[in-house]
Amino acid sequence: MHKGKAYLHCLPRQQAERIWWDKLTAIGYFSGLPVQQVSAGEALGRVTAQCVYARQSVPHYNSSAMDGIAVKAQDTFGAGETAPRKLVVLKSDEPFADAGCYIVDTGDVMPAGTNAVIMVEDVHFSEGYATITAAAAPWQHVRVIGEDIVTNEMVLLEHHVITPADIAALLAAGLDSVEVVAKPKVTVIPTGSELVATHRELKPGTILDVNSHMLCAAVTTWGGVPNRHAIVCDDYQQIKEAIVDSLQVSDMVITNAGTSAGTEDFTADILVELGEVLVHGVAIKPGKPVVLAICQGKPVIGLPGYSVSAMLTAELFVRNVLFARQKLPRPQVETVAAAVSRQVYSHIGVEEYVRVSLGEVQGKTVAAPLGRGAGLISSLTKAQGTLVINETKDGLAAGTVTPISLFGKCSVGNNILSVGSHDLALEILGVFLGRQANLALSCANVGSMGGIMAIRNNEAHIAGIHMLDEGSGEFNVPFVKRYLTNNGSWCLVHLAMRDQGLMVLPGNPKGIQSLRDLVRPDVEYVNRQRGAGTRMLLDYQLRQLELEPGNIAGYDKEVSTHMAVAATIAGGAADTGMGIRAAATALGLDFIPVAQEQYDLILNFSPEDERLALIIGILQSPEFRQQVEALGGYDLSKAGERVAF
Amino acid sequence: MHKGKAYLHCLPRQQAERIWWDKLTAIGYFSGLPVQQVSAGEALGRVTAQCVYARQSVPHYNSSAMDGIAVKAQDTFGAGETAPRKLVVLKSDEPFADAGCYIVDTGDVMPAGTNAVIMVEDVHFSEGYATITAAAAPWQHVRVIGEDIVTNEMVLLEHHVITPADIAALLAAGLDSVEVVAKPKVTVIPTGSELVATHRELKPGTILDVNSHMLCAAVTTWGGVPNRHAIVCDDYQQIKEAIVDSLQVSDMVITNAGTSAGTEDFTADILVELGEVLVHGVAIKPGKPVVLAICQGKPVIGLPGYSVSAMLTAELFVRNVLFARQKLPRPQVETVAAAVSRQVYSHIGVEEYVRVSLGEVQGKTVAAPLGRGAGLISSLTKAQGTLVINETKDGLAAGTVTPISLFGKCSVGNNILSVGSHDLALEILGVFLGRQANLALSCANVGSMGGIMAIRNNEAHIAGIHMLDEGSGEFNVPFVKRYLTNNGSWCLVHLAMRDQGLMVLPGNPKGIQSLRDLVRPDVEYVNRQRGAGTRMLLDYQLRQLELEPGNIAGYDKEVSTHMAVAATIAGGAADTGMGIRAAATALGLDFIPVAQEQYDLILNFSPEDERLALIIGILQSPEFRQQVEALGGYDLSKAGERVAF
Repeated sequence: MHKGKAYLHCLPRQQAERIWWDKLTAIGYFSGLPVQQVSAGEALGRVTAQCVYARQSVPHYNSSAMDGIAVKAQDTFGAGETAPRKLVVLKSDEPFADAGCYIVDTGDVMPAGTNAVIMVEDVHFSEGYATITAAAAPWQHVRVIGEDIVTNEMVLLEHHVITPADIAALLAAGLDSVEVVAKPKVTVIPTGSELVATHRELKPGTILDVNSHMLCAAVTTWGGVPNRHAIVCDDYQQIKEAIVDSLQVSDMVITNAGTSAGTEDFTADILVELGEVLVHGVAIKPGKPVVLAICQGKPVIGLPGYSVSAMLTAELFVRNVLFARQKLPRPQVETVAAAVSRQVYSHIGVEEYVRVSLGEVQGKTVAAPLGRGAGLISSLTKAQGTLVINETKDGLAAGTVTPISLFGKCSVGNNILSVGSHDLALEILGVFLGRQANLALSCANVGSMGGIMAIRNNEAHIAGIHMLDEGSGEFNVPFVKRYLTNNGSWCLVHLAMRDQGLMVLPGNPKGIQSLRDLVRPDVEYVNRQRGAGTRMLLDYQLRQLELEPGNIAGYDKEVSTHMAVAATIAGGAADTGMGIRAAATALGLDFIPVAQEQYDLILNFSPEDERLALIIGILQSPEFRQQVEALGGYDLSKAGERVAF
Repeated sequence: MHKGKAYLHCLPRQQAERIWWDKLTAIGYFSGLPVQQVSAGEALGRVTAQCVYARQSVPHYNSSAMDGIAVKAQDTFGAGETAPRKLVVLKSDEPFADAGCYIVDTGDVMPAGTNAVIMVEDVHFSEGYATITAAAAPWQHVRVIGEDIVTNEMVLLEHHVITPADIAALLAAGLDSVEVVAKPKVTVIPTGSELVATHRELKPGTILDVNSHMLCAAVTTWGGVPNRHAIVCDDYQQIKEAIVDSLQVSDMVITNAGTSAGTEDFTADILVELGEVLVHGVAIKPGKPVVLAICQGKPVIGLPGYSVSAMLTAELFVRNVLFARQKLPRPQVETVAAAVSRQVYSHIGVEEYVRVSLGEVQGKTVAAPLGRGAGLISSLTKAQGTLVINETKDGLAAGTVTPISLFGKCSVGNNILSVGSHDLALEILGVFLGRQANLALSCANVGSMGGIMAIRNNEAHIAGIHMLDEGSGEFNVPFVKRYLTNNGSWCLVHLAMRDQGLMVLPGNPKGIQSLRDLVRPDVEYVNRQRGAGTRMLLDYQLRQLELEPGNIAGYDKEVSTHMAVAATIAGGAADTGMGIRAAATALGLDFIPVAQEQYDLILNFSPEDERLALIIGILQSPEFRQQVEALGGYDLSKAGERVAF
């Protein structure tokens, strides 16, 4: 079906899944599974290979269910308040005689001749006699043999996931061990000449192998036993040998990466040689270059190299296969309907997966898209779910309500969405919110103007803004007044005065002193995106100085956070950029102050919402103030004060 | 607060929980937790002890995001379809020169002097030149240093449960290891002179220690590291030493059992000596005799001995403590509202926990109560949830809609509720339903009449019945006609003809030949409950023979399944009882046939419900027929035929 580099049939995802599933079913990959005998005490979470039947009854003898006396019920008939009955207390080794009884504790064997127990509270003992004032019904307070489980009765169904209570039932029913489905062994082979295994070996041009660790952890999560192969360089023969060796000891082999059409991408050719390639290329983004093959009756999966692509495609083509191979029910992914907070573009013909943060804002569930790059690991760690744009659409308009697949357990109601200008103080606010109220803060960094728009559309709880009005010289308030209607459902609260300035390499090698140096031909600038407060401050300052943006090299190179500006400079890709002192401090850069600016928060909560008081309380607390000021370049002396409204 | 045997203050559950929680909080049990450094690759599922910050940026260098050529964007301005631009292809060791470019693969370092990448698909190579027909924007297809994660940025929040993607993020951000909250160590001490550790030691009067295995598995489920102590006999000094020793190496100690007021129940006294007993006795059923104490700053919990009590009280007083000790969010128990299928009695002043099976019957969610004995492990393994009757009520009337706490993930819609007469063939039907349609069959054994009532009230999908009408000599149909209105929503389908007869010990030591022997004074009978088809058959036969029930010893000893009858005889508590041949065969009893009876199923599904066709298909299949007939005493030649309606 596939020869050579005939890459990218790019099948629709549903078709690729069906081909994959049907083939695995056809070759019997989900039946006649390997089994394993494990001791009952070690069987937690394992899946029974077949129905399990009791080897003994529970209880295995007739026992007293109470502390008291064992009697023959017939001896007690007629006893009552006005007709007490005296029974002789027999020793345990004496044979039963009519009108006799034995003292028994809970769990004791019912002595021969007795068939009922009277609770100790209802017996009066005196001089070798037990006096009772009520009759006993036959078999009262007796646990009868087999009352719980009877020999040969089914204790657990086949393909059942064993719980703690099941372990008790197995042991009680005489089963010391139980046959369970063997966990599938999955070998993950990291391939790539650029990969290194340790941070010590890392340098520009090499990449740490992180995906094999991630994929092995995913295999563990999905019930498999992962085996992480050593890194294999981009060599046809070496990769082939690694796959052949791994097939000997595994139920599934995953290679990562080498699946696209690059000069050193051999996986598909190797799998054509070793077996049958069913799919090469799926019309999804991220994740397109997936290879799905069967070699020696086992699935071999080539996953793409970018972390987000690798994880997504593993979820699509590995997870369900592992579950079925263990006879586990296919995991149900919970979904929630949410309104997308801004327009999202996509390509017709490609199913796009976008990571999102979720929150409930003014009664509406909102999904804020995160960074979409296939290499952005942080978009996975920050997201609460995934939005899928199907291949018939070229995007979603802002406000479109769409289903979001949730990552694990996520209580959307506990998420606080912050959309706006980026500030490190927000990370610290997030820590305090988590500690004090178990709330999680998600930040989307879209600049000040984006924050105001998010509040206007009720798509964020918090927006950090720092916008200078050129006319009045006033910060923030004019913009809030211009764009938002005050219906009492939000307020503007001060967070901090911050130093803004130019970041430069330590020692300032280019001798940059002020904004005037930006137009020097030997100075490369890195800018913030349009709508960012820092960009507005720069533009204002440039106009004051009558400097032409077109004369600044790198003015059109935009990044979207202070830290990204700092990192660009630290990495040598630019000489300077404007941002806050804290970002420079974090990366060890020098800082040339340009201006102080006012950074405020729009808090989009109704006045009675207790989260509003909570956040203001945190902002005003000495602990918060101290932690933020320690970042450098912050003045929080008025933090938490109402700015307007 | 507690001295000696002042047992059973019996605090309300809420009060006991509050005292327990407040005390543990006050002694700092949930703060300043022990931590542990683990390698990032091994950190799956662990909880971060503190916020984790990046040690390096991701990516750590500016890299090409595509296979193609690296250019200086400014060199390409003005290029277009009608104005192709030729660039000199430089060798990687050549310095950059204007109008030059380098061939780069994805992930390669951006060569000095370049700031954009053009995809290989958009380049024409020829004679040392690369020709392009579109301009490149600065920084296009370049992954900029820190684009994903910036040095010192927060990668993971404190108290975060680490996922596979988090592992990738940690490693990429330069973190080989991560500080996590140590898993709490919990020692479980089984106490009781009646306990034995292996089935070999088991005999009447001894009990296999199953609870310590169950509780250790529960501790594992809840994130702790269990340590199962050897069995300790009921000796004050030995139990005390076991607790003292365990406290040295554990964060929590659980003893089980020895917590009630029996003659050999020492736990509470020992804990008074070793520390502070906060609670002894909680007004719940099952589970009353719980002891909650603090010794050496650690929780020591005495759990009651019956398995169901032990599990329930562990869920109430251990689970949340372990979660909080790991900074995990308190587990949310899902609930579903369901109508109780029959009246449930309880005691005012006691909060009662009843295990239930769940199903959706004709659009209504139904909870069928299972056996309530504190020792019935099978009630835990068969249940899908728990119904709580609060202490102000003396029970719930049939049909009352009440919240049910679910055990883990349970899709109620996949459950089939069978309420009625017990038959082993139903177990086999359950296996087939699971295999063919991932449906789970729950059986409540309440006899034939109970089954008809359950169908009438739409509280079961299936009712097995075998009821002989004395007047007509006909089975089942007259009763169905009498009690059910046929609105087309159910039908009666034949399952099997079964042998009914008297079960006796192997070799028939009492020489029982027919029902006439039941009135012999030396013969002890065990009966089925009123409303059971077997009971009706017996009563019919007795009347035919003009035998007086009052003359049968044991006629008033009722059990509720065939297997329980067999087990009672096998255990020597009765000489004979009536039941089906399969039950006798299962326990190796002899069987004296008395009559053949017709066992049918009422199937309560609308005609278009695909589960109806599925069940009838199974009943008619040769595989099902063969498996049931192999039990002995069954004739399935007409299985699956409509009997009426």
